[in-house]
Amino acid sequence: MRQASARQARLTKPAGSLGVIEHLSVRLAGMTGRMDPPLRGAVVFTLAADHGVAAEGVSAYPREVTAQMVLNFLRGGAAINVLAREVGARVVVADIGVDADLPPHSALRAVKVRRGTDSITRGPAMTVDEAERAIEVGRSLVREQAPAVDVALTGDMGIGNTTASAALICALTGLEPELVVGRGTGVDDEGLRRKLDAVRGALQVNAGSIARGPIDTLAAVGGLEIAGLVGVILAAAEGRKPAIIDGFISGASALVAAAMEPAASGYMIASHRSQELGHGAVLDRLGLHPLLDLDLRLGEGTGAALAFPIVRAAVRLLNEMATFDEAGVSDRS
Amino acid sequence: MRQASARQARLTKPAGSLGVIEHLSVRLAGMTGRMDPPLRGAVVFTLAADHGVAAEGVSAYPREVTAQMVLNFLRGGAAINVLAREVGARVVVADIGVDADLPPHSALRAVKVRRGTDSITRGPAMTVDEAERAIEVGRSLVREQAPAVDVALTGDMGIGNTTASAALICALTGLEPELVVGRGTGVDDEGLRRKLDAVRGALQVNAGSIARGPIDTLAAVGGLEIAGLVGVILAAAEGRKPAIIDGFISGASALVAAAMEPAASGYMIASHRSQELGHGAVLDRLGLHPLLDLDLRLGEGTGAALAFPIVRAAVRLLNEMATFDEAGVSDRS
Repeated sequence: MRQASARQARLTKPAGSLGVIEHLSVRLAGMTGRMDPPLRGAVVFTLAADHGVAAEGVSAYPREVTAQMVLNFLRGGAAINVLAREVGARVVVADIGVDADLPPHSALRAVKVRRGTDSITRGPAMTVDEAERAIEVGRSLVREQAPAVDVALTGDMGIGNTTASAALICALTGLEPELVVGRGTGVDDEGLRRKLDAVRGALQVNAGSIARGPIDTLAAVGGLEIAGLVGVILAAAEGRKPAIIDGFISGASALVAAAMEPAASGYMIASHRSQELGHGAVLDRLGLHPLLDLDLRLGEGTGAALAFPIVRAAVRLLNEMATFDEAGVSDRS
Repeated sequence: MRQASARQARLTKPAGSLGVIEHLSVRLAGMTGRMDPPLRGAVVFTLAADHGVAAEGVSAYPREVTAQMVLNFLRGGAAINVLAREVGARVVVADIGVDADLPPHSALRAVKVRRGTDSITRGPAMTVDEAERAIEVGRSLVREQAPAVDVALTGDMGIGNTTASAALICALTGLEPELVVGRGTGVDDEGLRRKLDAVRGALQVNAGSIARGPIDTLAAVGGLEIAGLVGVILAAAEGRKPAIIDGFISGASALVAAAMEPAASGYMIASHRSQELGHGAVLDRLGLHPLLDLDLRLGEGTGAALAFPIVRAAVRLLNEMATFDEAGVSDRS
């Protein structure tokens, strides 16, 4: 990081004039231990799972959309597919907990831990063992792609998952649901009230589990794709690779990862500030500044993919720009 | 634009969940008259010129840096070269008013209108005829590249040009210099005072010209690269092509272009919000929302280049995403 900072100061531009990009290039040097980390292998891990709480009217979309969207991912028609093509990333689609029998597909990683979670308003979403297995699935998705992964991008699909994520964020941060619960896919005022009730209920009924620590909390009020992304983030950090964190759901995963392993936040890059209400507070807790603020609230890894070219640009600027000496340009007078 | 909006509503995502990107895709359809405008030919017009006011201690860098940086552009070592390579854009470097004899170079457009401007604190920077010729140079740079330009990105190089731009912005908006003048390349408090004095002096000594309208104002307190970029923006708009506006200097050019031809602002995309003090006010006047906010203050077209992948993504998302019907995904319940 010292070397990267020193080089930034010698490049042919006023010091600091590339703002956040300079800071990012220095952080990337710290994460990877090199000034020119390879970033060719960018993999979006888009993990899909269902949520018991979806039956309680917390989403604008019916539950079967989770499975339908997985098929859309596999056919390349979803937003994340388009963006991955645009930025030169690859999408790994994983069924970690969809409540449907998905047909085998060469591009689908079938790693179902269970068919959806139980409703967080009535008890724990899953057992602690299931949460740990889901984390391990996320880790192994990164490990099995290991040589091809220079940077991991997080993505999610799961009808109902902004409700579970909001509950998880409230449980981990102590924030009131009113400050965290947003409209997700776009629920109306009635739907928002149901989401708030669901989160409040989940926090109450699962209070005992929440007191036992982050993995118990994840099992109690989280979700299978949320747990899987915890594993993706931890595996990236363990491999000294940057993890580009998508939006609200990925932010909940990042909070769990940081609670389990505080050093992991050093490997996180916040891609964007989501439209979803509590996301700003999540980023503050993680000490991360988002690269983009485009009013996104789609998930899938779309924000991470949109931010990836900025990450790649940061590394290339540090390495490919001429220094004042090389270019024969006069430095500050 | 209606067709683009209607298609956005049918794509497999909650309506509005791509935020600013959706709005951008609709604007691009309006600009170009098609939902799938080609964006392969992205050209950064990086125009360089010197400023008489630079002799008055308003920059942290000596004046000869303008010419030195042009040579750096031609060798591919500057930030804009790196970013153009990263995003797949081409850089057209033009000497529209550098106060030096630059050696001929195949990649340099030698279109000097005059060797630098006179100091804006003592009278007009240039004559109205020179300003008009500089605008015409900018137009012809776009026209000569015409079939290869799908989108024009603006860029600048000129020691002293944040001072001229600040004066121009104050003159066109009526804003007080205290709200517009920033630290540019990074001047200290003394330098900032000198910049403020220079801008106040320029506005006073050129008050008569400023009262005569935007071209006289441009000639009085602007600069040759600023005038050239006015032409670049106007030519893009006339060709129904989007112009991605870089930062503070390009913003001053955009204000002049919009004052000359109000419809031109419909073709402008604001790439980023600069660290430079008055830039936010410029964007407000133009009615533009910046895509990025990365604390940049480098110029050259760097912000425009960083924003270009987002523009390209907006078009690809609109055209390549599957609709609910195509994908067999259930819409809102």
